[in-house]
Amino acid sequence: MLRLAVWQCPSSPGDVAGNLARLADAAARAAQGGADVLVTPEMFVTGYDVGPVAGMAPDGEVFAAVASITRRTGVAITYGFPELLPDGRIANTAQLVDDGRLVGAYRKTHMFGDLDSSRFVPGSGFPVFELRGHRVGMLICYDVEFPETVRALALAGAAVVLAPTANMVPFELVSTVLVRARAYENGIALAYANYCGTEGAQVYAGLSTICGPDGTVQALAAADGEALLIADAIGDPAPYLRDRRPDLY
Amino acid sequence: MLRLAVWQCPSSPGDVAGNLARLADAAARAAQGGADVLVTPEMFVTGYDVGPVAGMAPDGEVFAAVASITRRTGVAITYGFPELLPDGRIANTAQLVDDGRLVGAYRKTHMFGDLDSSRFVPGSGFPVFELRGHRVGMLICYDVEFPETVRALALAGAAVVLAPTANMVPFELVSTVLVRARAYENGIALAYANYCGTEGAQVYAGLSTICGPDGTVQALAAADGEALLIADAIGDPAPYLRDRRPDLY
Repeated sequence: MLRLAVWQCPSSPGDVAGNLARLADAAARAAQGGADVLVTPEMFVTGYDVGPVAGMAPDGEVFAAVASITRRTGVAITYGFPELLPDGRIANTAQLVDDGRLVGAYRKTHMFGDLDSSRFVPGSGFPVFELRGHRVGMLICYDVEFPETVRALALAGAAVVLAPTANMVPFELVSTVLVRARAYENGIALAYANYCGTEGAQVYAGLSTICGPDGTVQALAAADGEALLIADAIGDPAPYLRDRRPDLY
Repeated sequence: MLRLAVWQCPSSPGDVAGNLARLADAAARAAQGGADVLVTPEMFVTGYDVGPVAGMAPDGEVFAAVASITRRTGVAITYGFPELLPDGRIANTAQLVDDGRLVGAYRKTHMFGDLDSSRFVPGSGFPVFELRGHRVGMLICYDVEFPETVRALALAGAAVVLAPTANMVPFELVSTVLVRARAYENGIALAYANYCGTEGAQVYAGLSTICGPDGTVQALAAADGEALLIADAIGDPAPYLRDRRPDLY
């Protein structure tokens, strides 16, 4: 069983070096809590609503810095950044790193209005990775709101979904209703890490949460204020995956 | 816009005549509240957890009695009963009746353990019907818990889902989390009518609810006690249906 950590924090737009320093500190605290993996908010490295951004190589300096933190703390990290693709376009990407090596990458598939579609090219799949003996997937923010995404990961064998997000007011019910529903209806643990505070014109909704595969809210942050949630991915799944009728849909 | 009524009541197992009399009374009260349609709990005519039951013709005496109530009160009714199929087997069926005529029938597609699978043959589709100028679908209890069912109805153009249920303790989060999620993620109104009280070994969870297409809880009954909820199917849908990625699932 994985011990999940979710870090809710304010965005610090454009301050890549400062964000990496904050990340090292949060990872050290997650390590003290015995966490296996730390999930950070969407596009944590640069901030989310920061206008056009330069793309970063997925294996460049930022990756090297995060990899170093995972080696030093013993905690795996999911972090988001603007990924420079081979064709010069940019994806909204999350990478999962453990013990200095890349476990997997995910590119946001569902574009949230102009904020995403004016800057990012959408991804095209829901890959599943193995982290410390457990099958995990990643989704980013708006993706989680579509039941098809978490279902696809669950059907591919994922037991845990790690989800960086930048969810704004007034969409609080995403945290308290949709995320919990996704965990319960798929028998999957879901770690949903949101920003708090403001970032330009955005007011973030906080309410970061960890839900268990039985739909239990294992942890829930307040609407405002930095928080580090640590909880185990435990609970007995309902038999939904067994009782589906794939012949009908 | 449809005005929806949801009737939460105890089961009265096997008392078909008494149940039809209770239904007439509830429909009259719904009419006084200006409701267009009244939704009753699962298998209302006979009760749900009542062991093997004799099948009823879908156009027999019970249908005639319900049709008469709809003509007399001006309120359409969704009611459940054990339907005798042409091959002699039995389905867990809900019929929607308005102004004395059958609008549509739905057969439960997802079997809830032995309670369903030992008695019923599952249905095979998610039809959409027109009720007073609005497109509506029906689902029964466990069906709603699968995101694929409500999605199928929404993609087929349904604006409202009428859902008889017999949801037991300790599955309260179906009412408060899953039903609300289904409404919000599909931009669809959902009327979920549950039993309260006990029926044999079952303790029903009550918490009948009407959710709007914007995910608002328009009405929510208590865990115990008879209740008649009346609320309009209003609210602006989120753009989920537009922003799906059907190429990926």
